[in-house]
Amino acid sequence: MSLDTLFDPRSVAVVGASANPAKWGYRLASGALAGRSRRTVHLVNQRGGGLDGVPFLPALGCLPTVPEHVVVAVPPQQVRPVVVEGLAAGARCFTVITSGGAGADEERELAALVTAHGGRLLGPNCMGVVDTTTELRLSWGDFPAGAVGLVSQSGNLALEIGRLLARAGQGFSRFVSLGNQRDIDAADALGALIAHDATRVVAAYVEDFRDGRRLARTLATAHTAGKPVLLLSLGRSEASRRAAASHTGALVSARAVVEAVCRDTGALLLESAGELVDTAVLLTAAGRRTGLARPRAVRTAGTQGPSSPAPADGAPPQARRRRALRVAVVGDSGGQGALAADALSARGLHVPVLDEATRAAVRGHLPGRSGCGNPVDLAGAGEADLRNYARIARALLHGGDTDATVLTGYFGDYATADPDQADQECAVARELGEAARASGRLLVVHTMARDTPALRVLREHGVPVYERIEQAATALAQAARQDRTAPQAPPPLPPPAPSGLPDGDYETVRTLLGSRGITFPAAEFVTTADEAATAARRTGYPLALKAMGLAHKTEAGGVALGIADETALRTAFARMRDATGATRYAVEQMVAHRHSVELIAGVRRDPSFGPVAMVGLGGVTAELLADTALALAPLTPERARGLLLSLRHAPLFTGWRGAPAVDIDAAADALCALARAAAEHPELAELEVNPLLVHPDGAVALDAHGVLT
Amino acid sequence: MSLDTLFDPRSVAVVGASANPAKWGYRLASGALAGRSRRTVHLVNQRGGGLDGVPFLPALGCLPTVPEHVVVAVPPQQVRPVVVEGLAAGARCFTVITSGGAGADEERELAALVTAHGGRLLGPNCMGVVDTTTELRLSWGDFPAGAVGLVSQSGNLALEIGRLLARAGQGFSRFVSLGNQRDIDAADALGALIAHDATRVVAAYVEDFRDGRRLARTLATAHTAGKPVLLLSLGRSEASRRAAASHTGALVSARAVVEAVCRDTGALLLESAGELVDTAVLLTAAGRRTGLARPRAVRTAGTQGPSSPAPADGAPPQARRRRALRVAVVGDSGGQGALAADALSARGLHVPVLDEATRAAVRGHLPGRSGCGNPVDLAGAGEADLRNYARIARALLHGGDTDATVLTGYFGDYATADPDQADQECAVARELGEAARASGRLLVVHTMARDTPALRVLREHGVPVYERIEQAATALAQAARQDRTAPQAPPPLPPPAPSGLPDGDYETVRTLLGSRGITFPAAEFVTTADEAATAARRTGYPLALKAMGLAHKTEAGGVALGIADETALRTAFARMRDATGATRYAVEQMVAHRHSVELIAGVRRDPSFGPVAMVGLGGVTAELLADTALALAPLTPERARGLLLSLRHAPLFTGWRGAPAVDIDAAADALCALARAAAEHPELAELEVNPLLVHPDGAVALDAHGVLT
Repeated sequence: MSLDTLFDPRSVAVVGASANPAKWGYRLASGALAGRSRRTVHLVNQRGGGLDGVPFLPALGCLPTVPEHVVVAVPPQQVRPVVVEGLAAGARCFTVITSGGAGADEERELAALVTAHGGRLLGPNCMGVVDTTTELRLSWGDFPAGAVGLVSQSGNLALEIGRLLARAGQGFSRFVSLGNQRDIDAADALGALIAHDATRVVAAYVEDFRDGRRLARTLATAHTAGKPVLLLSLGRSEASRRAAASHTGALVSARAVVEAVCRDTGALLLESAGELVDTAVLLTAAGRRTGLARPRAVRTAGTQGPSSPAPADGAPPQARRRRALRVAVVGDSGGQGALAADALSARGLHVPVLDEATRAAVRGHLPGRSGCGNPVDLAGAGEADLRNYARIARALLHGGDTDATVLTGYFGDYATADPDQADQECAVARELGEAARASGRLLVVHTMARDTPALRVLREHGVPVYERIEQAATALAQAARQDRTAPQAPPPLPPPAPSGLPDGDYETVRTLLGSRGITFPAAEFVTTADEAATAARRTGYPLALKAMGLAHKTEAGGVALGIADETALRTAFARMRDATGATRYAVEQMVAHRHSVELIAGVRRDPSFGPVAMVGLGGVTAELLADTALALAPLTPERARGLLLSLRHAPLFTGWRGAPAVDIDAAADALCALARAAAEHPELAELEVNPLLVHPDGAVALDAHGVLT
Repeated sequence: MSLDTLFDPRSVAVVGASANPAKWGYRLASGALAGRSRRTVHLVNQRGGGLDGVPFLPALGCLPTVPEHVVVAVPPQQVRPVVVEGLAAGARCFTVITSGGAGADEERELAALVTAHGGRLLGPNCMGVVDTTTELRLSWGDFPAGAVGLVSQSGNLALEIGRLLARAGQGFSRFVSLGNQRDIDAADALGALIAHDATRVVAAYVEDFRDGRRLARTLATAHTAGKPVLLLSLGRSEASRRAAASHTGALVSARAVVEAVCRDTGALLLESAGELVDTAVLLTAAGRRTGLARPRAVRTAGTQGPSSPAPADGAPPQARRRRALRVAVVGDSGGQGALAADALSARGLHVPVLDEATRAAVRGHLPGRSGCGNPVDLAGAGEADLRNYARIARALLHGGDTDATVLTGYFGDYATADPDQADQECAVARELGEAARASGRLLVVHTMARDTPALRVLREHGVPVYERIEQAATALAQAARQDRTAPQAPPPLPPPAPSGLPDGDYETVRTLLGSRGITFPAAEFVTTADEAATAARRTGYPLALKAMGLAHKTEAGGVALGIADETALRTAFARMRDATGATRYAVEQMVAHRHSVELIAGVRRDPSFGPVAMVGLGGVTAELLADTALALAPLTPERARGLLLSLRHAPLFTGWRGAPAVDIDAAADALCALARAAAEHPELAELEVNPLLVHPDGAVALDAHGVLT
């Protein structure tokens, strides 16, 4: 069954209807009745009664027609009988509001019962479903109509988003409250919103990603379909991970994994309801207009997830800044213009010097001395003649040297002090909207006004309006990020290898990875000091001695490096055997390269997303550098290369300060091989090469280990 | 003359008064008249007329009494005659609104005329002055009364701040528009606000710091006086530096310097008007209450300026997190609680697991399964009984295991849906405020409601209320930062050395710094290859050869390192002489240490703040690491040590991964000596030691140079 019946059933039945406005049964029943002109509405309550002239029928079995969509708001122990009765009555779509009373297993069994009949179930423990385009309001709370589709695992957060959207003149196309996701899950609901014409921006709050790769595939299709997805999730802090564990009982995906998935699928990961709403408002206003729609990717992959701080102006490499979204700023005062430029630049947007042609077009409308290089300082030009706002905005929008224009300051508030200016201010607001539309670029207004007629006109004409400059800047930066990269659907997992690994020891892992093309130094595996000495004659000195069979061999004294001769080898061997009691040892060539970069490469299994590949700068200060990048495994060589180049220290690879470039392709190949090997061995919780030494002629793994689940 | 007359004159005269509401002269005159019950108000306009029954007198000379404070809003060419007439009439305080018409020199001369008479002048080109506690309103715009004093170099920004304050239930005690600062400057105005009893929080927007050290001293006194100072400035981006240059004509201080000054003086440097208002509202509500008032410093100095991104949870060292402000979170939903915890943690606040005693106190008011470890999930407890909000908040505020409590979600909106709950909701709001007051800790509310009676009650009872969780989190984080450190007044500059340096060459700088106790490797200065060879016999091989007299000796081929023997020395010498044409060379011992950390240390002269010392991680990847810290020069050894320890890579100094600790005191001493030498030589625009090698037994400067202004 498609989810169409969920959003636009020909008939709906509310079981547990109530005439008491304090009850859920009332909210659902009155919400359902609001759609009476479009569908048949049945209200069921075994105790009788009625609402708005519609009598409550005693049971689903008594309905004159089949209820396509049954909303269940009855005490917990009655949920299952109601669903059984509904199925018997021919219903195939159920929304279960009721929470508690049943364990996870009972809930799953209930969902299985519905799906076995070819039906679908939303919930239990959800706030219901709303489609403002079909007059379906099966939830508590106000859901203002608009272009934003919302999927949420938290009802209160949905209400908060609704309030903020309404204050910004936007609202919902659809709202799906996920509840316990026993059948319909986040990916299903997102899919239904992406396919929905009236939904222009898809928003979601998800705590528990379930089958993360399926969700990621859905996110990637959204981006391809031109529907931005704005995601809120938790897990950035220990406290929020704690909250999630106690709230949904699910293991929380590492935030860095969620960030990597969002980066790759083109979804925007936001911090708060407010940031989500600000961005949604901008994206609904922008449509596919402006430079926002053109790919401006420089970094195709990286740690720079949506919640990472954007580099400050000046900090990022020139190449990157040149391709950032270019923004023209026009302010009623020099101070506001400068603060706007700072806020935009701090979020990675570029506020370039305007072309001379644009400056000339602007200059004519400004008083003598004011700056028009960008930011443009109106310096009273707006006050002198309101039409100057439109003239200057038009010049900037049509200049072609920027992708978007931000107007910051006072506009929108003239009529507050002087009602005689109301008509003209609204006329100018209309002109501003039309100038933006005609230019195909985006105009964003930050103003100290709130809720004035001119602001309503701006919003009606597709100009997003913000109360704070940081809101405007964040929304623009997020929107700019949205179109930077072509989405990367998550890679399919390879079939598991025919036989699992017996352990995660160096010898085992080396064999596995060596067979996949990763280079290791020459080594032999021995059991006695004499065998070690014999092997050493073949590998040559200096060499490394490593004890096998230890979980943490370095910490246990099971690694000795730079052994110079046989005497040192025998001493090291004896000491290591005493310390570790190991029965097997690697005698391994020491590898050194004059120019090399030390990396760490690894794969870990995320509870929702499966194997995730990581690469980072290694060496003794790795922890201090914290320079790592992630992506779902397995990887293509391009993907692996992208991860490497996304590191903050990537300039080290390409010939830093006169050093020769290192063989980044070899490093990428090694990372690919590692990621694939881990993906084919689901018995591994972790697989790591550390260090992976990349030098001008290749890459060599100096150590490796795995951890079995 | 103290500035008392500016804020509370016994008489005021508005010159250029008007009866036309569109004119400045009207706004000033009607504002002045609003204070008629407190002071004599004279209105002057040579063309006659009147306002509100007060006739316009033709000239200042015609006034019956001496006008203590004269506000000038006349055409530019009349400003000087009016001031002269005012001085003649005995006036000693002038506020000049008029802009344009006079050059900087004429304006300075006008200010000098006033001060020569023992008077003071505000402006020209300013928006005037307001003191809501003395009914003085000599400006355009609404200035709601409250506890925030504002000094601003932008009038529009002041209006914006006023709007945002009013929406948050706050307002101004005093407002001073700085204009062109020809006499009264930012430091003067800040001083007057700090000394003002009714001003509880001082806010400032400053573009041009003038005498930066004087301003810094004022900032430090504010902190000592317990008045938080919230500063907005520009210069974070190239575009904003451009704007400032065209706007005030002043050179803009490097943002990093302003950040360092704010960190040291205890001022908070904010991003936007919104962030400033959110923080001001919290600080006025908090008073000296809560953990906010207790010093919680761990880092006494560092790059971590207010605008740096706070470390994400998990990232910072444990020691630091343990001392961060501890926040209890209670949410109406699991999702909102978790997002709040994330927003707080991302800003460096700690959301710890609550003590068992606190959990027990909370648990009794919660439904069975909800989480109470922190965040506390109300899970309907508030809806079930509004008084649970107060009960739970009281338990958290009195628990003693956290410093502040954040309530996030729905509270404040119950009466919107159900007016019958209005009284109870307001009663609970009162209880919440009283609980916070009684506990001596801070309660902060984030709610989806806006402008409801319950929110007004909360605000009246000292509970700050925010529409977005990120506002609450940012304000708390800023406020927590405010009291972290004891303020450090800027160090006095030493008297200049009796004779200036002839150049910034290595030899000159080495002599200067060597005489101040900085260690350099043994070296001799020579002119020929033979002299070099002779010198080398004393210094020993390997050695370094450096050409003197070059601005950029490394780039010019004027440095050769690791010269192993005399043949290599002679080859290097010949090549270097060909490449550089230098006539003088250093033959210098090569210094190597098995364990060492390479630093860069330098001093640069800021246009406002003078010499600024910098220390950072050096080495080939220094630019990629971008790990530096600044403070005004000269430094004490403690200060220098603090800067070193504030580096992100500071763990390298104290014994990283088994390496021995390096001699951080020697590095601090070298940094001190460098800073003092630069401060005593104002002819130096820059002075740098790079690298400064710190090893377990000392610190050695391997190269140095200066740049003359």
